[in-house]
Amino acid sequence: MRTGIATVCLSGTLKEKMQACAIAGFDGIEIFEQDLVTSPLSPEEVRKMAADLGLGLDLYQPFRDFDGVTPDLLKANLKRAEAKFNLMERLGMDTILVCSNVATATIDDDHLRAEQLAELAALAGDHGVKVAYEALAWGKYVNDYEHAYRLVEMVDHPNLGTCLDSFHILSRDWDTAPIENINAEKIFFVQVADAPKLSMDVLSWSRHYRVFPGEGQFELAKFMGHVVRAGYTGPVSLEVFNDVFRQSDVERTAVDAMRSLIWLEEQSAKWLASTALETGTAAGNGSASRRRYPMELATLPKVNEPAGFNFAEVKADDTAQLEKLLGQLGFEFEGRHRTKDVQLWTMGQARVIINEQAAQHAEPAIAALGFDVDSPVIASARAQQLKAPVVARKVQADEEVFQGISAPDSTEIFLCQGSPDGTAAWTHEFGEGLEHAGAGQTAVIDHVNLAQPWQHFDEAVLFYTSALALEPQPFAEVPSPSGLVRSQVMQTGNKAVRLVLNLAPAQQAEKARKTYQEHIAFAVDDLVATARGARDRGLEFLQIPANYYEDLDARFDLEPGFLATLKELNLLYDRDASGEFLHFYTATVGSVFFEMVERRGNYDGYGAPNAPVRHAVQYDSLHRV
Amino acid sequence: MRTGIATVCLSGTLKEKMQACAIAGFDGIEIFEQDLVTSPLSPEEVRKMAADLGLGLDLYQPFRDFDGVTPDLLKANLKRAEAKFNLMERLGMDTILVCSNVATATIDDDHLRAEQLAELAALAGDHGVKVAYEALAWGKYVNDYEHAYRLVEMVDHPNLGTCLDSFHILSRDWDTAPIENINAEKIFFVQVADAPKLSMDVLSWSRHYRVFPGEGQFELAKFMGHVVRAGYTGPVSLEVFNDVFRQSDVERTAVDAMRSLIWLEEQSAKWLASTALETGTAAGNGSASRRRYPMELATLPKVNEPAGFNFAEVKADDTAQLEKLLGQLGFEFEGRHRTKDVQLWTMGQARVIINEQAAQHAEPAIAALGFDVDSPVIASARAQQLKAPVVARKVQADEEVFQGISAPDSTEIFLCQGSPDGTAAWTHEFGEGLEHAGAGQTAVIDHVNLAQPWQHFDEAVLFYTSALALEPQPFAEVPSPSGLVRSQVMQTGNKAVRLVLNLAPAQQAEKARKTYQEHIAFAVDDLVATARGARDRGLEFLQIPANYYEDLDARFDLEPGFLATLKELNLLYDRDASGEFLHFYTATVGSVFFEMVERRGNYDGYGAPNAPVRHAVQYDSLHRV
Repeated sequence: MRTGIATVCLSGTLKEKMQACAIAGFDGIEIFEQDLVTSPLSPEEVRKMAADLGLGLDLYQPFRDFDGVTPDLLKANLKRAEAKFNLMERLGMDTILVCSNVATATIDDDHLRAEQLAELAALAGDHGVKVAYEALAWGKYVNDYEHAYRLVEMVDHPNLGTCLDSFHILSRDWDTAPIENINAEKIFFVQVADAPKLSMDVLSWSRHYRVFPGEGQFELAKFMGHVVRAGYTGPVSLEVFNDVFRQSDVERTAVDAMRSLIWLEEQSAKWLASTALETGTAAGNGSASRRRYPMELATLPKVNEPAGFNFAEVKADDTAQLEKLLGQLGFEFEGRHRTKDVQLWTMGQARVIINEQAAQHAEPAIAALGFDVDSPVIASARAQQLKAPVVARKVQADEEVFQGISAPDSTEIFLCQGSPDGTAAWTHEFGEGLEHAGAGQTAVIDHVNLAQPWQHFDEAVLFYTSALALEPQPFAEVPSPSGLVRSQVMQTGNKAVRLVLNLAPAQQAEKARKTYQEHIAFAVDDLVATARGARDRGLEFLQIPANYYEDLDARFDLEPGFLATLKELNLLYDRDASGEFLHFYTATVGSVFFEMVERRGNYDGYGAPNAPVRHAVQYDSLHRV
Repeated sequence: MRTGIATVCLSGTLKEKMQACAIAGFDGIEIFEQDLVTSPLSPEEVRKMAADLGLGLDLYQPFRDFDGVTPDLLKANLKRAEAKFNLMERLGMDTILVCSNVATATIDDDHLRAEQLAELAALAGDHGVKVAYEALAWGKYVNDYEHAYRLVEMVDHPNLGTCLDSFHILSRDWDTAPIENINAEKIFFVQVADAPKLSMDVLSWSRHYRVFPGEGQFELAKFMGHVVRAGYTGPVSLEVFNDVFRQSDVERTAVDAMRSLIWLEEQSAKWLASTALETGTAAGNGSASRRRYPMELATLPKVNEPAGFNFAEVKADDTAQLEKLLGQLGFEFEGRHRTKDVQLWTMGQARVIINEQAAQHAEPAIAALGFDVDSPVIASARAQQLKAPVVARKVQADEEVFQGISAPDSTEIFLCQGSPDGTAAWTHEFGEGLEHAGAGQTAVIDHVNLAQPWQHFDEAVLFYTSALALEPQPFAEVPSPSGLVRSQVMQTGNKAVRLVLNLAPAQQAEKARKTYQEHIAFAVDDLVATARGARDRGLEFLQIPANYYEDLDARFDLEPGFLATLKELNLLYDRDASGEFLHFYTATVGSVFFEMVERRGNYDGYGAPNAPVRHAVQYDSLHRV
């Protein structure tokens, strides 16, 4: 699959954008007109730079408001087009995107439109230019890709074809199956964009909220499957207008973009294989079914979803507070690593590593997470092919080699060899006889809550989806005293791994990194007993206001003794149709706190109704300090 | 008019919110339940604090999903209500907001709803509580205020009335005139919120984008006029869910909120007076028509829109660069002030003050703007009643006293005595014979472009609307290499004053204040001559890329000689149906640059199609340094 990206997706100057696209590994780019117009580079310099960088200049765009106009306007439009065709010659480009008219069209007549497009195609032919005509979702008269293709068929000129853009098609809920009926020679270009499903006007949605494939909710693998089945072999190029990407670091966004296409390529091949099986149109063999299409789809090393958390790692210059908290919660200190300055603490199968190798004065923070995977080497190879940055860790002979990658928020993610009994072999490095520590005990890491910088929230969703096979859940918003907190759960189908990605309000983010708190939650069988034990060991609980318990009683009509226990121990409570949830929080040290939870029945949430209480009390304690 | 605000409008803890509301001068507040539930203050402590602060506790809210339910659920809901009634007793509150059911209603039957509301009203009566029933715009069965009122009438119980919320009514485009048919005794509460007109689902619109009156596009004066005519005399209270306000400084947001109610009160009185005149239902005398209604509406000192800019002031520690730029542009140095370290530079009627009294190492920046008003004293009194912070300036005997206020972005705004010939009397303080400097010459300040911090963008719109009688125009978005720039023009009807408020992308805002550039634009009669003169004096123009002129030619088909002149002098060009616009920019010093413009015909814009070029070239020069 030939990969491409429109320069409008990225921040910076044209030069910065082109360099970033080359570094990220794109085959080609679309030049967004405004990026050229505002550039000090001449067309010849752009052409040379692209050649030097090994980037194809695949599409010049957009040419707007051409068709369905009065004769006078047509004449002016053809003159305008000719100027652009001359410019393209200097750039060494051969394809231009012409969007269906949104503003100046006054005549709704397919024959007239076809005549005018035929004139454009003839002029384009004289300049060796191919015109890719695209139906915009909000086109005045032409807003449906099948309509645009009918016009292309009516004109029937070698220099006129169509451009398919997933946003314009999927935002309008057009059926994508008829793409297969399009003559592949007439598909001059394919643009892809994902988007969250929002109920707003399609123009605003398109101009601000598009995201890269895998970061939204569109069925892009299906769209691409139909495109591949049609026989298309040209560029598959990202055109994503996004307010955040336009403000973010250009090189990083380009890598995120490239990752999305690599992932989309794999998903499209999967979709094709699965539908081939379903419909029996090919042999049951996936690769055989793929080989039937002219477009080659690369795949990635396969991984299953992680079986669980292997460990969580916290880090500090002075680790005393972390040790104290874990000890009070009931964790056991298992020992120090034989060569590194790290400690192992466990409760059942929940393993926490306290890393003492932090920078001077570094406050306690979450540093790394380990996940149990079938094959760390294969999972790591996949992540690297998805352009995840590798994390290097020193290892001594006969120590387990951790395969590490860096998540968008810089948390280190380690891909570890899981074991059926939930133990971890590397624990013996902390002392003899620890290989099976925790076997049979039920405490586990329930979920981890990580703060995400606003520039990398969408990137994080794609990272965990593509590299770790986690599935994004519908996102929630939680009120806090300093603003709404966007909360995105990513989890495995078996719920053994749950990550909560929180996007903090800008004020919090600006103030200081550490004011935004992250946490690790552990699940136990008997939360009341755990809380009692912790209280007896002197744990500083997050103090829950009395008003909360009154409201709880009004909402749930609880048994008085139970309510008194909750209140006595600062426990929070939630209930839904599937079960109950009890939990408590510790005070915060540095930017970390811990949570203990008990899930009763099939309760599947995180006590979301209690989150505002947590935020308010934490805010209050921060501001009192 | 009794003023109120819901605690959910503001950031912080309940205590912080209450203090801010008292400081801003609100009569009362609505307690949003979650703010109480998450507070460490007991109900009794909240009650005492409110009494100490002189704040009424006017509404407890919200109570959700009561009506239209099955008998079992009704029983649970009544129990839940009773717990809240008991709580309200401890708080010393007597009114609760009950929203129409959005989630649990299963029976769409007015008789059943009325029966259930009657049960609630009876229970409320036992506790001395008044229930204000409100139709939410997205209520499952009840989403229209007239429907809610019909239910109140059916129940006909002294403890059941209705709550009117401008958002729920205006977002659905319900006609507001029938409000006058509601029995005022049955209107227990009125909530007001403004909003920009957005085409998105009403729930998201409501939860994220509400703004304070005067900051959006709803016809709130008309809404309030009908409420006043109905005979309502209770609190008029802000309920504004806004993502930005929730993150902003609580005291400042409370003042912004209070300003919006003071302004709304005046606008409502005006609307009543104007409709009384139109319909002849009252004497032509405004105050007589106001006195007909039980609610007293305070008014403000009246001001007309400013007649023009009086001056602009730039400030720096080292002013050499500013002096050089102004001199090169053709400004004349008129002299130094006789007692202050400031210089006066003029070109025609465009007056620029260079202030040398900046902090050490302070880079050049826009510091102040002066506006010609009919009466500086009255305009200042109005601004102060609108809670604009006063700016003090030292004056000597026989110097003009400047009435100054501070805009939300800290720019100092001075209200100056205008004169019919466009001169300024204070100029004699810079030298004899300068009183009439520039009379008859045509150069003027055309517009000023100010960067707004994201937390105070909406506040700025209300500030200039209410204190200076500027009118907000539809806002635009301009692409720049570091993100989209939101651009809000505020201007007078006669176009003599034009302010452009720009909201910079967050990345720019984070990096450094000074990377976001502001400018002053001057209009001249002959831009080409001005540019030639400036070039001859060695001005460093903002360098416009050659690609721009090619695109310009493709778009406008310009006369070759004219195009060559534009290119030679780095001039930008725009044209629309009403006229033409020529302009150029200087290089930037500190955070300031200057623009020279020529308006031909009735061209009324700012060369918006050229703004991306300006941003790109400025970005490029910043990044090259």
